[in-house]
Amino acid sequence: MTYCVGLLLDSGLVFMSDTRTNAGVDNISTYRKMQSWCVPGERFITLMTAGNLATTQSVVSLLEERSKAESDRNPSILEQPSMFRVAQLVGNTLREIIETQSGEGQKADATFSATMILGGQIAPGPMRLFLIYPEGNFIEASEDTPFLQIGETKYGRPILLRGFDPKMTFAEAIKLLLVSFDSTLKANLSVGLPFDLQVYEKDSHEIGYRNRIELDDAYYHAVSDGWGEALREAFKRIPPYEMKE
Amino acid sequence: MTYCVGLLLDSGLVFMSDTRTNAGVDNISTYRKMQSWCVPGERFITLMTAGNLATTQSVVSLLEERSKAESDRNPSILEQPSMFRVAQLVGNTLREIIETQSGEGQKADATFSATMILGGQIAPGPMRLFLIYPEGNFIEASEDTPFLQIGETKYGRPILLRGFDPKMTFAEAIKLLLVSFDSTLKANLSVGLPFDLQVYEKDSHEIGYRNRIELDDAYYHAVSDGWGEALREAFKRIPPYEMKE
Repeated sequence: MTYCVGLLLDSGLVFMSDTRTNAGVDNISTYRKMQSWCVPGERFITLMTAGNLATTQSVVSLLEERSKAESDRNPSILEQPSMFRVAQLVGNTLREIIETQSGEGQKADATFSATMILGGQIAPGPMRLFLIYPEGNFIEASEDTPFLQIGETKYGRPILLRGFDPKMTFAEAIKLLLVSFDSTLKANLSVGLPFDLQVYEKDSHEIGYRNRIELDDAYYHAVSDGWGEALREAFKRIPPYEMKE
Repeated sequence: MTYCVGLLLDSGLVFMSDTRTNAGVDNISTYRKMQSWCVPGERFITLMTAGNLATTQSVVSLLEERSKAESDRNPSILEQPSMFRVAQLVGNTLREIIETQSGEGQKADATFSATMILGGQIAPGPMRLFLIYPEGNFIEASEDTPFLQIGETKYGRPILLRGFDPKMTFAEAIKLLLVSFDSTLKANLSVGLPFDLQVYEKDSHEIGYRNRIELDDAYYHAVSDGWGEALREAFKRIPPYEMKE
């Protein structure tokens, strides 16, 4: 499993992904699930992936190769004129990979499915945030649904629904994400530290703040412990139920 | 979908279930998913059900019929000598129903699967709380895992993990359940009010406090609103993330 969240704030985008991959509980590894591309002053794009690792790595490799080899620069993620076109490119690449892997040779019990979150900004367009399905189609975050989740989405959703505010600062947004990730970690073994973090500031068109939150990150542990404590305090403040017969 | 939780407290058992059933989003109904049996001074048993409604109703009807018709009183839920035997009886009845429905006639796309929570006490035995699988086998709540959930379990789990304390009072436990149910309700349309509530006091062997929390229940709305507020307050108390470059 995996847990990735993309937030659409008024002031920019915040992305967080875990790094645990597993094939059964006895075969776990750490892989980066977040990839960013930047042409300073022109575009910044981040892609997060959930699902079959072979599929998501193939998609990223193909997008990477297409963006790097001069002779094969079309269609390239760095040449698309808009985020919508990038989403189409990623969606088509994803569908292509899944079709190729599903179509031939030995069959696997597992599916080759994958889901992705894509966000960024290409000048002169606005910031956009998409969720791309295995079928290659996609939906976009909006004012009404200002955050997107993929992977193990349920445990961490209530606090996002309750705590998200499009006007929050990046520091607050990161705190919110860590609480959401912590709730997920506590309930699902297949989501694990370290977490990758990427912030994009609106209209900057450059790589913003990024960090990897490691297993021994002091702030993460302060959030995890502090949140348990804060929740119990919050719970105490709700008046008790009255058992009227 | 459904959401049911059974809590094993030091002082007794608390059960809560929602009442929404659906076959697609355009076909929803309200059904009681909680059933209790009592022989005052001797035994108290509560059963909560999730899954295929035809299956769970059949199981309950069969258990009811067996418990009521004098001539057909064996095996009866009211004659089993221990909670373990009751769990076996319910498990076997469940497996029997699923086998019968799956085996013959027209096939359905949906499965006939169901999962149940069974709790209670039969003198002179201790209180026990079980989760019964569609296969008819079951697991028991213990000190380490003092609550059991069935149905849409994920959204409401983080607060149970953080907030549960076996020494809490019934009133606190009900508050905790309402917070957990509220988080689930906010995220999944197929879980809905009213909620059924049943409290069993340890060694009482009688029907304890019970209530149906209706759509317009003032306390539920106070919890729902208050919890959103309390969560935001709790969130504020966590120190902000420091974006060190």
